[in-house]
Amino acid sequence: MSRRTVVHDTIVIERRFAVTPARVFAAWADPVARDRWDVPGDDWVVCESEHDFRVGGREYCRFGPQGDARLCGEGRYVDIVSGRRIVMAGTMSDGGTVISVSIGTVEILPDGAGTLMIYTEQVAFLDGRDTSAQRTKGWRQILDRLEVELKG
Amino acid sequence: MSRRTVVHDTIVIERRFAVTPARVFAAWADPVARDRWDVPGDDWVVCESEHDFRVGGREYCRFGPQGDARLCGEGRYVDIVSGRRIVMAGTMSDGGTVISVSIGTVEILPDGAGTLMIYTEQVAFLDGRDTSAQRTKGWRQILDRLEVELKG
Repeated sequence: MSRRTVVHDTIVIERRFAVTPARVFAAWADPVARDRWDVPGDDWVVCESEHDFRVGGREYCRFGPQGDARLCGEGRYVDIVSGRRIVMAGTMSDGGTVISVSIGTVEILPDGAGTLMIYTEQVAFLDGRDTSAQRTKGWRQILDRLEVELKG
Repeated sequence: MSRRTVVHDTIVIERRFAVTPARVFAAWADPVARDRWDVPGDDWVVCESEHDFRVGGREYCRFGPQGDARLCGEGRYVDIVSGRRIVMAGTMSDGGTVISVSIGTVEILPDGAGTLMIYTEQVAFLDGRDTSAQRTKGWRQILDRLEVELKG
């Protein structure tokens, strides 16, 4: 019997933005805006992407360091509440091998004149090919870029 | 802004069976066997089902109490390691409304002459339409039926 592992974890990251919930929601909903910020690290690139932003719509993104964009996120939008909530479910692959299965929930809440955004990712990491620390680091970098996007 | 909620939880249920891992795996993999046991409660019925047991294959089941089978589980098999692991991702709907999004992981491990099975469900419950306690109760009833199936 082969040695195979699954590690389950839940990542929660909160961010406050000085813009309205409608603007934060739009940064997720607009495919062009999304491709500007949803990549970890300034030296990483998005090579191919699809954001069919509707319930049941496909979400796909091939990305990675310049010249080695072999990571693929692929999934579906499962639930969308305009201005308020987005739930996505899918997989992350590295060179064709599935390394994790995730549910990503974006909650967008009014917070004074601004917004509290809570990103929750429930992840099953397969066969030790990725870790919760790595994934969390990636998301922090992505959300730093979202912050820059929202200041623009 | 509408009042919408998401509750995230992880349900873990362990069961030991006095049969081989191969037999436990087969009870999940065989569509006919699966429909015999994968329903909570002896008075509940499966009305429609599809178990396309391969990576990317669709899984669908409409079930509920006799005469009111309005619950629908729908998803995909994301990862299958023969005899060892099954990962499914999908949604549960009640009368057409999505009530939860889940990743279900079945781990099947040798345990002496028998098997230790670990079922882990990472769930996002939407708008309070289901609860972790309810879902856990349902799975315990289902796994009681799997135990009967494996004794047959």
